[in-house]
Amino acid sequence: MTTDSLLQRRFRVLGRNSPLFYDEPLHLVRGDGVWVYDAHGKRYLDAYNNVPHVGHCHPRVVEALCNQARTLNSHTRYLDETVVNYAERLLSTFDASLNRVFFTCTGSESNELAMRIARECTGNMGVISTAYAYHGNTAAVAQISSVFTPPSKRGPFVRNVPVIDPYRERNGRSDEELADTYVQDLQHAIADFERDGVKLAAVLFCTAFSSEGLPELPRGYLPKVAAAVHAAGGLVIADEVQAGFGRFGSHMWGHALQGMVPDIVTMGKPMGNGHPLAGVVTTEDLMERFTSENMYFNTFGGNEVSSAVGLAVLDVLRDERLLENAQSVGTYVLSGMRALQKRHPLIADVRGKGMFFAVEMVTDRETREPAGARTKAVVNAMRQRGVLISRIGPHDNILKIRPPMSFSTQNADLLLATLDTVLSTES
Amino acid sequence: MTTDSLLQRRFRVLGRNSPLFYDEPLHLVRGDGVWVYDAHGKRYLDAYNNVPHVGHCHPRVVEALCNQARTLNSHTRYLDETVVNYAERLLSTFDASLNRVFFTCTGSESNELAMRIARECTGNMGVISTAYAYHGNTAAVAQISSVFTPPSKRGPFVRNVPVIDPYRERNGRSDEELADTYVQDLQHAIADFERDGVKLAAVLFCTAFSSEGLPELPRGYLPKVAAAVHAAGGLVIADEVQAGFGRFGSHMWGHALQGMVPDIVTMGKPMGNGHPLAGVVTTEDLMERFTSENMYFNTFGGNEVSSAVGLAVLDVLRDERLLENAQSVGTYVLSGMRALQKRHPLIADVRGKGMFFAVEMVTDRETREPAGARTKAVVNAMRQRGVLISRIGPHDNILKIRPPMSFSTQNADLLLATLDTVLSTES
Repeated sequence: MTTDSLLQRRFRVLGRNSPLFYDEPLHLVRGDGVWVYDAHGKRYLDAYNNVPHVGHCHPRVVEALCNQARTLNSHTRYLDETVVNYAERLLSTFDASLNRVFFTCTGSESNELAMRIARECTGNMGVISTAYAYHGNTAAVAQISSVFTPPSKRGPFVRNVPVIDPYRERNGRSDEELADTYVQDLQHAIADFERDGVKLAAVLFCTAFSSEGLPELPRGYLPKVAAAVHAAGGLVIADEVQAGFGRFGSHMWGHALQGMVPDIVTMGKPMGNGHPLAGVVTTEDLMERFTSENMYFNTFGGNEVSSAVGLAVLDVLRDERLLENAQSVGTYVLSGMRALQKRHPLIADVRGKGMFFAVEMVTDRETREPAGARTKAVVNAMRQRGVLISRIGPHDNILKIRPPMSFSTQNADLLLATLDTVLSTES
Repeated sequence: MTTDSLLQRRFRVLGRNSPLFYDEPLHLVRGDGVWVYDAHGKRYLDAYNNVPHVGHCHPRVVEALCNQARTLNSHTRYLDETVVNYAERLLSTFDASLNRVFFTCTGSESNELAMRIARECTGNMGVISTAYAYHGNTAAVAQISSVFTPPSKRGPFVRNVPVIDPYRERNGRSDEELADTYVQDLQHAIADFERDGVKLAAVLFCTAFSSEGLPELPRGYLPKVAAAVHAAGGLVIADEVQAGFGRFGSHMWGHALQGMVPDIVTMGKPMGNGHPLAGVVTTEDLMERFTSENMYFNTFGGNEVSSAVGLAVLDVLRDERLLENAQSVGTYVLSGMRALQKRHPLIADVRGKGMFFAVEMVTDRETREPAGARTKAVVNAMRQRGVLISRIGPHDNILKIRPPMSFSTQNADLLLATLDTVLSTES
């Protein structure tokens, strides 16, 4: 089976618009830790995927999956210890007010449920997201996923706030001044709803603002957002699909890093290391109010196998000290990227934390003109040279580097050296 | 860990409204084929669950899961042979017009996507479901899931048709007359939309009408439904979560049994034998029109592990001749149930096909007064005696019996004997 004939077969069953990475799609056959292998036996360093959060095919996660799959796999309408153990372990990583969990199967289902809870419990309909957000693929969630949904399709109950871009917008201002400016954007969206008679149910954002380009948030911004949302009668929904499970190294959750306690937290991708497991964490009060009026059941959500896998991921994060690893290797990567920045004028800004990095590329550091086409060329050239990354941001000019949490300094050296070579060749 | 203290711990993390089966919740620890075992080692015959479609912990499905989980588990943005093989195998079981598949993770996600496709491709908003339907838990799907959503919450774009109940409504009429009457109900709903200026996007129904009580559909009814929907400019969405994957024995899909070709088919629960795998099958034209305007990606949907599991389920269905088994054992169960009906006046009607049975209970065969409370007592008494079943229907008076497809005549004997004992004791 050649890659090209496989591609043709795929078009005939999954269609031509089912997304594929890279100009030359990658035909993978094996994964192991931070490595993946294509059909020709070529090895690639995975510096992109957060689905295999603790590494591709991690043996402890696979063992937990297989042991439980051999034992029992039904649903949570029967009592089971594993799901309770997992729920307790997961909730112990949150602020004490966030003490209830719904298990779902995908980040889309989690954001969908969070919006249902917010709208039911506030009695309001308005939801605010950013102008370049992705939160999932259901009808309600697609409306707030502005990256793929034009304003004409977002309906009457959605408003967007502009994307935060401190790299371009700081202009010498302090964090406090910048945070106040961005909170003003939110106040404008709330006022815009009010003009149309729409009351605020929730603000929903990714705590990494990942699609938006992983901006360095001004200190104090998110707590001020929460205060403004609560003052307007809404709830704060923190989407932790990208930032969660220790991605930033110093904290288990992006909102905790920012010193903010949301009303509802959603999570997905990294939670089951590839197994379809996701969740919504909220307060006892919101869960009780929602479920006393609305039956919610998710057949596969939190089943015995999903819970066993989720527990194994938490065990590996703890036992392999992967948050500490993300912190130390993350610092190493950032410093290496800043060294590259000095030598390669294409690199305008390097930011990130833990195991999540954004490298912003411009054609001119004075005008800060986004270098979208060259960023795309860099991503494809990295793939040709055996390192997998992607790109983000409204101008598609920001390298997205988000490796499995077990990424080592040796892996970092390969990433940095390859990027150096590519930039020297392509620039 | 006693069952009671586990229940208390569960309440504190999953809440008190997270659904549990039976007056006395069942604490399961192991499953094997048609059997499950509780924490005290007691064995139960599973005559209810369709999640373990080919049997709890089927070794071939577990082996496929484990082999692939040890090898690679990422997502469909890379090329992979397994997902293409699975898509081709799955599509080969459908009418030739249904030649494209989207993979999702849950039945809710599938119905959600089907509604998005129908609304986008027709440009219309109106969706019709039955007055006692369950199709899932997202905001849009909950609106059409009338079993849990009161008419006041269904919004302006949903109408319900009354539940079909030939047991009570036939009154000596032929199938053709009955089908025409029921299609009239649908025409009234379409006319009701028209009065409000709402155009029809789709009719969405479970092809088993499972929540509605597994009625025996009049011959020709579903083809007439499809004709009426198409004449009104809408699409037909067949929810095969209950009827699909050979549940009825004679056909792989409920719509095929009824001689009808839908525009969109949704599937879920049995597809991955407990693994969170679901899908939407549709035409090339609808997929192309939807995806050229809307980016759709589902991170976990159809990943390498999900596809390997889905393939294994199809292999087991074929190699163990489980559709044939459902036909022969199903006939045996129906005849045994009809024998019980002769001796137990509580049993008013026995219906079903393949491995899906409905046993309707009334307090009086003349008035046909539903025996909801006694049906509940029977379900709980069966559980106490080691046989798991449930109940359905607008009056909760219909035993729902839907065992794994590998259910044998010996299993059927135990089911029938236990029901006989319970009815003799309870009645």
